[in-house]
Amino acid sequence: MNAEIIAVGSELLLGQIANTNGKFLSKQLAEIGINVYFHTVVGDNSDRLQSVIEIAESRADFIIFTGGLGPTKDDLTKETIARHLGKNLVFDNHALTAIQAYFTKTGREMTENNKKQALILEHADVLANDHGMAPGMILTLKDKTYMLLPGPPKELEPMFLTYGYKRLMEKLDKQERIESKVLRFFGIGESLLETKIDDLLENQTNPTIAPLAGDGEVTLRITAKHESKEICDQLIGETEAEIMNRVGDFYYGSDQTSLIKELVKELTARGMSIAAAESLTGGMFQEQLTTIPGAGKVFKGGIVSYTNDAKSNLLQIRDETISAYGVISEQCAIEMAENIRTQLDADVGISFTGVAGPDEQEDQPVGTVFIGIAFRKGHSKVKKLNLSGSRAQIRIRSVKYGCHYLLNHLSI
Amino acid sequence: MNAEIIAVGSELLLGQIANTNGKFLSKQLAEIGINVYFHTVVGDNSDRLQSVIEIAESRADFIIFTGGLGPTKDDLTKETIARHLGKNLVFDNHALTAIQAYFTKTGREMTENNKKQALILEHADVLANDHGMAPGMILTLKDKTYMLLPGPPKELEPMFLTYGYKRLMEKLDKQERIESKVLRFFGIGESLLETKIDDLLENQTNPTIAPLAGDGEVTLRITAKHESKEICDQLIGETEAEIMNRVGDFYYGSDQTSLIKELVKELTARGMSIAAAESLTGGMFQEQLTTIPGAGKVFKGGIVSYTNDAKSNLLQIRDETISAYGVISEQCAIEMAENIRTQLDADVGISFTGVAGPDEQEDQPVGTVFIGIAFRKGHSKVKKLNLSGSRAQIRIRSVKYGCHYLLNHLSI
Repeated sequence: MNAEIIAVGSELLLGQIANTNGKFLSKQLAEIGINVYFHTVVGDNSDRLQSVIEIAESRADFIIFTGGLGPTKDDLTKETIARHLGKNLVFDNHALTAIQAYFTKTGREMTENNKKQALILEHADVLANDHGMAPGMILTLKDKTYMLLPGPPKELEPMFLTYGYKRLMEKLDKQERIESKVLRFFGIGESLLETKIDDLLENQTNPTIAPLAGDGEVTLRITAKHESKEICDQLIGETEAEIMNRVGDFYYGSDQTSLIKELVKELTARGMSIAAAESLTGGMFQEQLTTIPGAGKVFKGGIVSYTNDAKSNLLQIRDETISAYGVISEQCAIEMAENIRTQLDADVGISFTGVAGPDEQEDQPVGTVFIGIAFRKGHSKVKKLNLSGSRAQIRIRSVKYGCHYLLNHLSI
Repeated sequence: MNAEIIAVGSELLLGQIANTNGKFLSKQLAEIGINVYFHTVVGDNSDRLQSVIEIAESRADFIIFTGGLGPTKDDLTKETIARHLGKNLVFDNHALTAIQAYFTKTGREMTENNKKQALILEHADVLANDHGMAPGMILTLKDKTYMLLPGPPKELEPMFLTYGYKRLMEKLDKQERIESKVLRFFGIGESLLETKIDDLLENQTNPTIAPLAGDGEVTLRITAKHESKEICDQLIGETEAEIMNRVGDFYYGSDQTSLIKELVKELTARGMSIAAAESLTGGMFQEQLTTIPGAGKVFKGGIVSYTNDAKSNLLQIRDETISAYGVISEQCAIEMAENIRTQLDADVGISFTGVAGPDEQEDQPVGTVFIGIAFRKGHSKVKKLNLSGSRAQIRIRSVKYGCHYLLNHLSI
């Protein structure tokens, strides 16, 4: 079964909102093995909508429409589909009653155009809207299935999950399951990673392997299809083992995680506390750490030593260190990590100093970054990075490298 | 000129990401009066991409492609377009040099497939990629214009704004100008603001007024159309004056600015330095301050006093203050602001303490926030907020309220 998602709404074409319904539905359909080959966005214009329906019918068996079911003149999805399919629109009494009840309850005046929302395509099955007024519907005609869903995600998502999904599963006559797992890598470029698993990518059938890169990270999504969940899991496990064999050194976690989440998890597991001293990252490491509820269990606090004054007065960095080596140096990074660790009596201290740009600093090029880590027990470590990209990218990647560097040293 | 945006990438059809590039480009095109009638998303499949190019050519003069310019086998946008248009792909020496320099600089291994990124359609003009490796390009052939942009938003957005936009304006031969100005408001809800300018919104023709709300801020975009820039500016000025008359108390800046940028601007203009002490915001205020190049001229540094230990040891908050009033208190906020100001000898100190959630703290409900400000000259101030929303929203809004509160006190 091949699907196309048609989003109807001029606000999408004006760039006021992104087509997040397309993302949501695609993810749901992928999970039950329905291939989505196209998304189309069209404005509130009946002729253009009609033309995209014709194109969709030529290349998909299952067409989902989102948006254009509301009360205003702009809302013309079901009217256009009705005309195209030669169907009438009829009142759904259940929906009409629900709409009337809504207005009675909220004490608002029900205008005539609100009734329009209770119109459905004749012979369609209604998908109830538990979070709004316009019902959805599903209709199969000449081997094509049409599903109409409301535009607001707050209405669309529960409608699809509660009613649409079930109706779709009934229409699918196969039992095939789809399972997937996302492997996350850091410290390796997308192209180098792909080169290392080139033969696996070339020969993929079941499971499939899909790489995706962003913000210095690379993910591989392994997707297996089979009637049995056990066999899906086994297929994924075999491919995962082979991938880990090649690039496991760069792996840091699977599915919905992030480097900072992994770091909090590992620190928590070891009962270790952390303190931070940040220069070029300006507090980003600490800000990200504290986005996680419960971070207070591992994170004690830290200093943003953006100026030399702050390094001397707050962090107690020795003047000799700064005059001999500069603040963009291994020595300064180590002293920052050690001092913040001591000041807050934490198990580990981490520091970030470097040149985010746009200008050079201490004759060091933009992208030069030092990350220091100091442990209550054991030696301090420092890592030098030469990052590229914009000021924002250098800061983001510094934080990620810091998490990764510390994670590696925690697991030793 | 009618446009269609074609996003290429299976990750969009699998629901891993939303087509935010479509939103970004649509917004940009709308602002210069180019009608976008369709968005299409297609996977990394040459035949299907070819079919959508043919459809797009039948209904648009200007086709923008996003994605599929990278180094891997999946990336086939330019190869498919080249075949479709009967054009060769040729190496762009400038792009090739930039790619080689990138690998030399970062000390990473350059694989052969990276060279592929320097291939461009023959006769196309290159749009330089200042934030990545794959260059964009623009080509006009038989009355159709094709623009190819990379998929990652961090590369696409600056490329379009810096190079693509200008090339597009050169191609537009129409005389009508479109000018717009965005007014930014903080501290007033969208519906209240709209109520106050209801009659202006009802009767808008030229200029138009478009409200947009997000993250506690409301913006109004005023857009005027006319052949003459002077008349556009005059039309905008008249509407702006009327709006400011109604809701000017909540206005903080226009066009591409933000509360944090305005704060840096005002501090710079006054030659004032700032230091910060943050608890619930975890460093977010300082992180945002330091996103701005040159923030070092006003920002000295600060402390993230996430735990009571950090408040005592780093910030020197008196134990009596904490035991008598707690850390979520006016007294603690003021002492935090005063102490960080003194420790860094700054002209102003700002502090954030409160309950971001998900749990209550010191019997204070989630959303209770105190912001302290301390000046070298004059009295310290404190403001109590009762914010609603998620943990992330409470933190973001605390920072915005802090900027706004300090801005108001600077301008006194």
